[in-house]
Amino acid sequence: MATSVNRAEAQLTLDLALAVVEAARQRADEIGVPMSITVLDKGDILVAFARMDGAWFGSIDIAQNKAYTARTFDMATKDLALLAQPGAPLYGIEASNLGRLIVVAGGIPLKLGDRIVGAIGVSGGSAEEDHDVAQAGVAAL
Amino acid sequence: MATSVNRAEAQLTLDLALAVVEAARQRADEIGVPMSITVLDKGDILVAFARMDGAWFGSIDIAQNKAYTARTFDMATKDLALLAQPGAPLYGIEASNLGRLIVVAGGIPLKLGDRIVGAIGVSGGSAEEDHDVAQAGVAAL
Amino acid sequence: MATSVNRAEAQLTLDLALAVVEAARQRADEIGVPMSITVLDKGDILVAFARMDGAWFGSIDIAQNKAYTARTFDMATKDLALLAQPGAPLYGIEASNLGRLIVVAGGIPLKLGDRIVGAIGVSGGSAEEDHDVAQAGVAAL
Amino acid sequence: MATSVNRAEAQLTLDLALAVVEAARQRADEIGVPMSITVLDKGDILVAFARMDGAWFGSIDIAQNKAYTARTFDMATKDLALLAQPGAPLYGIEASNLGRLIVVAGGIPLKLGDRIVGAIGVSGGSAEEDHDVAQAGVAAL
Repeated sequence: MATSVNRAEAQLTLDLALAVVEAARQRADEIGVPMSITVLDKGDILVAFARMDGAWFGSIDIAQNKAYTARTFDMATKDLALLAQPGAPLYGIEASNLGRLIVVAGGIPLKLGDRIVGAIGVSGGSAEEDHDVAQAGVAAL
Repeated sequence: MATSVNRAEAQLTLDLALAVVEAARQRADEIGVPMSITVLDKGDILVAFARMDGAWFGSIDIAQNKAYTARTFDMATKDLALLAQPGAPLYGIEASNLGRLIVVAGGIPLKLGDRIVGAIGVSGGSAEEDHDVAQAGVAAL
Repeated sequence: MATSVNRAEAQLTLDLALAVVEAARQRADEIGVPMSITVLDKGDILVAFARMDGAWFGSIDIAQNKAYTARTFDMATKDLALLAQPGAPLYGIEASNLGRLIVVAGGIPLKLGDRIVGAIGVSGGSAEEDHDVAQAGVAAL
Repeated sequence: MATSVNRAEAQLTLDLALAVVEAARQRADEIGVPMSITVLDKGDILVAFARMDGAWFGSIDIAQNKAYTARTFDMATKDLALLAQPGAPLYGIEASNLGRLIVVAGGIPLKLGDRIVGAIGVSGGSAEEDHDVAQAGVAAL
């Protein structure tokens, strides 16, 4: 895999985004759960997407929302989920941002070195499986 | 800072709104938390906005929602939050007004003398930090 | 490239969709125009997407609209564009389907044998360049 | 005006965005037309906004759409307007991107050196006046 990123600029190139998608896909294959996988750049703009054969149609939108949420709050949606419970400080947060937020595990910010350059969002399995597959994508950078 | 308000009319001019934003920003700088700061006028219409470097993207919409909520109910969102808890009289209120309400601290009405002229909304830190920074903005009038 | 399609069913697998995207991307690289490339399946559902480095943000939505339009009418958007001109039989058609149609060249149905299995949509260059790159994607099947 | 941008990174800081807004506002004052002025960063995300006293309420949304359009196509909306006329290659383009596009003069990309770092959008006067005021904002960088 060519990785044409200029690390001085820490930008998420398409090559890198596709490497993230492929790593996530391999992990999803290993656990046998078809998923939708989205990669957004640091401005929350779509770079790459893949829906594995057999993944729920509903997973497309959820994967994008998870990536959007992770970058919008610079936090894994798994962690945000805890803060958004009844009684927790961000309860109700998902009602903001025009319906694009989702406080379910499976979204994680992407970093190059210590800089956030985007986010991955995964949907199709359980919350734990989605986070696991997203983590495999993160590890590709 | 020029304050070109006509006090006879008690209107929130852009100059005043920018003074509110700047005072809030200075307080946010003091506590070291980057925030989004919104000022709406008495008709709930946007006058001024600033997103500090490093503030979560998600704080933009939430700051606007907090200011909108504060002016819509003429009440600090910190106080409205108490009324919107399960069992309290306004439980569920945030489902009204087309998704523009949020019952989290950080929104406060703005007054000139005893007249409400608009509202400030702040997001980016904890609920307490957001209220503190909004209060600094209020104090600029 | 593994092509795991079951030709008896003529389904567009993710592997095939990624092969279509990659072929289009190579053509776009050849002509030196960064583009967004979308592949939808026969149900008009997103399968794969890639935005090349430097492509306009606006190309993301337009590429998806072109693919949607091509599959929705089972016709290249280049041809549909002629039918949608003032005085032609489909003038105004783009106002239907909730804003998802676009009558600009760059969308083409994808076939396996004689069966339509989806569509490709390309945006980022001129209408002619977009159609050329989409055609390169079609040729990968 | 402190300009805390790190030019090596070419990022649009809040200080720079406010300088752009202020320069545009001064020009609008000179020509005597109250306007709404929006600055977005390179990811099309809101950084700063000001509505001058007396500006149409409708100018708020239009200013944001103009900035969004300018960054989405990396082109002044004045130029895009020509390409979107009946018979021109991008005719109908404004129907894409979920209603956030507007092909009216007043939106211009913002650059630091040769890199696009965001966009300004201005609304409140005639198309020519809006472009003139936006240009004054661009000149502040």
